[in-house]
Order: sequence, then structure tokens, then C-alpha cells
Amino acid sequence: MKIYDVEGFPNPLRVRMALAEKNAMDSVSFVAVDVMKGEHRSDAFVAKNPAASVPVLELDDGTYIAECSAIIEYIDHAFEGISLTGTSAKERAVISMMQRRAESMVLDAVATYFHHATVGLGAELETYQNKEWGIKQGEKAQAGFKYFNDILTTNTYLAGDAFSVADITLFAGLGFADFANVSIPNEYTELIAWREKVAARPSLQ
Amino acid sequence: MKIYDVEGFPNPLRVRMALAEKNAMDSVSFVAVDVMKGEHRSDAFVAKNPAASVPVLELDDGTYIAECSAIIEYIDHAFEGISLTGTSAKERAVISMMQRRAESMVLDAVATYFHHATVGLGAELETYQNKEWGIKQGEKAQAGFKYFNDILTTNTYLAGDAFSVADITLFAGLGFADFANVSIPNEYTELIAWREKVAARPSLQ
Ligand SMILES: N[C@@H](CCC(=O)N[C@@H](CS)C(=O)NCC(=O)O)C(=O)O
Ligand SMILES: N[C@@H](CCC(=O)N[C@@H](CS)C(=O)NCC(=O)O)C(=O)O
Repeated sequence: MKIYDVEGFPNPLRVRMALAEKNAMDSVSFVAVDVMKGEHRSDAFVAKNPAASVPVLELDDGTYIAECSAIIEYIDHAFEGISLTGTSAKERAVISMMQRRAESMVLDAVATYFHHATVGLGAELETYQNKEWGIKQGEKAQAGFKYFNDILTTNTYLAGDAFSVADITLFAGLGFADFANVSIPNEYTELIAWREKVAARPSLQ
Repeated sequence: MKIYDVEGFPNPLRVRMALAEKNAMDSVSFVAVDVMKGEHRSDAFVAKNPAASVPVLELDDGTYIAECSAIIEYIDHAFEGISLTGTSAKERAVISMMQRRAESMVLDAVATYFHHATVGLGAELETYQNKEWGIKQGEKAQAGFKYFNDILTTNTYLAGDAFSVADITLFAGLGFADFANVSIPNEYTELIAWREKVAARPSLQ
């Protein structure tokens, strides 16, 4: 199994966290993609992932899996250990919903802010920007912080009592927010406490 | 089990197709939401789904599940019949990836075109529009049609030999495209043939 990614980038972090939660980091070899030089937009890479983004998982049979949610689905079913995507119908549905919300309300909103309302990856890579849309998405991320802070006043983790892929997505989203200077208000104490709890997990040491 | 939705709308169609594929339409009672009057933005509805969108599934224990991908995850695990989300790690990952691509490359792109580059649901509901972004998303949908047409030159269904939730999402996306006047070029013969094949499934009669 191979993963094409950039260490330290927010989406790649999601997959690395999932692997670490499963104690499976040693089962994978990592191939560095030079995103800052635009390697992810080369024909060779776009053939692996039409969205021209990292990470991409390559299975031993040559199948390429893109989209962190799909890659983590694979990891969760391929390796022993805690369940990241749930087992019962209800657990699976709640985790899937919260994961999707963490993506759309925070991680992807912050990413769009970063790529459209700031210099992003720099003028050579940001070939189209829509600043007004980027700013709107920054506001959406703020609403997302509030939503998750509210959820965490009653829930230990996003989907309930157990850590899941939803927590991974939000954690990566908050890291991206720091990087993009989208500030997380101090008043969101539940969100901040949850973040410290996730940061203290063995998989992140 | 209850589903809050609007019959005939593209996202509600996804869930209704999944239920029909499972022969489970009779297990659900439907509650009509008056989206054209803004009922989905009322406090009562936003408490069910912070994204203020339909459909929403209510389980018998009072849990609300939003996001079609999550609702169909529930349906797939709760009812007998063909698997819509796959069983092996690889199947689950490929289906999840193709489902996500059908959302982001077509269905959500067409929706954003509709809400931003056209009158959408009308001036009262479209309180913020970004026409330039909407047009870009329409172009993204066109690229999505091409991508899926290419996939369907080798695959019977989006994720391989078997019908899955990925096909449901793309089928709903093409229906939305018709409605929003995003035209599907005649040259995409594989996509058009696949669409006829899906339309002929017993679940859609
Ligand atoms: N939805 C995708 C997002 C992937 C993504 O956007 N990755 C970023 C790195 S964190 C990327 O490759 N960006 C390249 C670019 O924006 O050109 C996933 O889940 O994998
Ligand atoms: N990602 C959501 C999308 C739901 C959605 O956008 N539904 C539309 C109806 S097809 C809606 O409620 N629109 C209301 C609005 O735009 O105000 C899902 O999977 O359920």
C-alpha cells in the first residue's frame, strides 16, 4: 500500500491520523508529491486522482483511492483496532453525517477561504480566485466552530461517546484554520477542550 | 422512521431511490417540508438539520440524520437486499470515493450553479448569490459529465460491475442538471446510455 501525499498538509493529516489510530503506519509507504511545484496537476497525477489533490492511496492491485473519507473507509475495514466509521446502522449514519459536516462546515470552508481570500498556495497555483466567495466561506467556518462547540457541550466526541473519523476531519480542519489565520474564538471553550483532548491521543504523539 | 423532504427534489430523490432499491418505501412515513415557503429555515427545522436542507431522516429513537450519504448508509445497513455501499474494504472505499465525486463534481456543482447563476428558488430564498462562482461551478459540472462518461466506457456502473449509491447520486445530479438547464452534451453517449439503464431499474418505476 502506498500513499501519495505531503506531510503536514491538512488532508494528508486525516489519513495519517487514521493509520496511527489503527497502529498501521508501518503498513504503508509514503510517496511525496511536490504540490508547491504543481506536481499534483501533472497528467500522471491527474490520472490517479481527477480532483488533482492529495492524499491518494494506491492499493497493491493498482487501484487508486482518493478522498480522505473513502481512504479512511478502506483503512478502517482493512486493519484491526478501534472502529473509526462505526458498526451498527445508526453509528455508521451518525458518524458519516458528522464527518460530512466537519468537512463542509469547517475543513472545506477553511480551504476555500484559504485558496480564494488569501494568497493561498501562491499566484502560480491559484489560477482562479473569487475573493468574495472565499470570505463567505470563512464566515461559514465561523458558524461551523459555533455548531461544533454546541455539539461538544453534550457529546464527548463529535458523534457521541467514541472517537471517530468525524473527529479526525474536524481536528484537521482546525489545524488548517490556524494556518489560514481563521481564528477560533476563545469563547468556544468546549471546542478548545475537545481539541486538546484529541491532540493528546497516542496517535498524535 | 420518518423522512422530512420534498417529493421530486434532487436530494430527496437519492434517499427515495435507496429505499426503493431495498423495497423499504413502506417502512417510512414522509413528512412534506414547504421549502418554497422557507420552512426548512425555521428554528424548528434547523434544530433537526443545521444545514437547513432536505431530506432529514428521523429514527424511532428521535435521532435526526441529515446528508443523503449518511441517510443511505443507515438505509443500507438497516434493510436487507442489494448492498448499496459495498461490503469489502476495497468495495466500500471505491463506492465511497465515486459517491463523493458524483456529489462534488456533478450534483453539488449543479446545485451551486442553480442557486447562484440562475434565479434558483427565487429572490426570497436566494438571499446571497455569487453569479461568477455559480458559472464556474456549472463549468465544473461539465467537466464532471466528461469524467463520468470516460469512467462508463469501461465500467458498467460508477464503482464497477454493481449498482451502488454512487449511481444514485449521479442519477439525481443529472436530473438536477436538466432542471437547471445545464445541458449534457449528446457526445457523452456512455453517460446517456448508463442513465437510461438506471432509469429502467424497477426501483424507478
Ligand atoms: N476532499 C479532498 C480534499 C483534498 C485536498 O484538497 N488536498 C489539498 C492538500 S491539503 C490539495 O491537494 N490541494 C492542492 C491544490 O489546492 O491545488 C480529500 O478529502 O482528500
Ligand atoms: N448535501 C445535502 C444537500 C441537501 C440539499 O441541498 N437539499 C436541497 C433540496 S434538493 C435543499 O434543501 N435546498 C434548500 C435551499 O437551498 O434553501 C444532502 O446530501 O442532503
